[in-house]
Amino acid sequence: MGYTVPVGISNKHIHLSQADLEVLFGEGATLTKKKDLKQPGQFAAEEQVQIVGPKGSATLRVLGPTRKETQVELAMTDTRTLGLKGVPVRQSGKLDGTPGIKIVGPKGEIEIDHGVMVAQRHIHLSAAQAKEAGVVDQQVVSVKVLGERELVFGNVVCRCGDAHEREFHIDTDEGNAAALANDVEVEILL
Amino acid sequence: MGYTVPVGISNKHIHLSQADLEVLFGEGATLTKKKDLKQPGQFAAEEQVQIVGPKGSATLRVLGPTRKETQVELAMTDTRTLGLKGVPVRQSGKLDGTPGIKIVGPKGEIEIDHGVMVAQRHIHLSAAQAKEAGVVDQQVVSVKVLGERELVFGNVVCRCGDAHEREFHIDTDEGNAAALANDVEVEILL
Repeated sequence: MGYTVPVGISNKHIHLSQADLEVLFGEGATLTKKKDLKQPGQFAAEEQVQIVGPKGSATLRVLGPTRKETQVELAMTDTRTLGLKGVPVRQSGKLDGTPGIKIVGPKGEIEIDHGVMVAQRHIHLSAAQAKEAGVVDQQVVSVKVLGERELVFGNVVCRCGDAHEREFHIDTDEGNAAALANDVEVEILL
Repeated sequence: MGYTVPVGISNKHIHLSQADLEVLFGEGATLTKKKDLKQPGQFAAEEQVQIVGPKGSATLRVLGPTRKETQVELAMTDTRTLGLKGVPVRQSGKLDGTPGIKIVGPKGEIEIDHGVMVAQRHIHLSAAQAKEAGVVDQQVVSVKVLGERELVFGNVVCRCGDAHEREFHIDTDEGNAAALANDVEVEILL
């Protein structure tokens, strides 16, 4: 077997800008860490918000720290439940032309005019791990999953550098399509 | 390119036995055809039921004609929304050891003690189509999907014979993981 990475399945979630955090949670609000994530410095916060679409609403956990721009990450199944159309598959931070949504917090609400996306599946690797795996930043690879719902994911982007730690990030649709659980080791195919 | 089949994405649905149909819709009830499905003789009915799990409920369309046993087909995402645990991936009709659920119709309700499953992805082919594709009934193949969320599905069972018509049946999680739409042609890999 080649180089392997543990699976990390992302449930729907939101990243907030400091300005939007303060509208939703009050002036001077900060995020309270609930749990560290595998990626260095990233954490699940205690804070949650509601997003409201044409057909329904959903509760999203906030991931910290705050970012330059607010970003809502949904699985395609979620976009259908909410009644959102044309939500594109994007790399994190590439939000041009994405749709917006109404976000409701305990102290206020906002309507963002862009920022809703389905995350492109990707692998995080530190510089040393990337070297060991034989890949470079932004390289596109495949990932093989064994088991009952065996499959090979194509178009997996590697994101490499010292802000990263080995993990294969997919959404709940992708995890369920492969009957995967967190931390299962899957193989990179070059 | 090799032999291709059109995608058919199954939303959550239910097949009912005649006895359960009559409990849910009244004595002597029959199904009313709303729309023919691709598989010969199969149809989506006007009738819908509610299923009720520990964490939520869902509305399911009934597919006809009635069957020997009632069978509930969900995507894994649905099983989580409903709060159902350990729902296995199964071929249609293989219901031993599957969990049950409460089903509510307009005229009555039942609690089935088994019959809830996640469908194993599969390909339907007529006898002539199977011959052309070079596969036999119950053969396990892979299916290649191109595009933004390119992937290769493994463990795809072929179901061949004159009750079948070329179609690759997957659930909504699988369709979303591959960013697929109905009727896209995908390739069988032998």
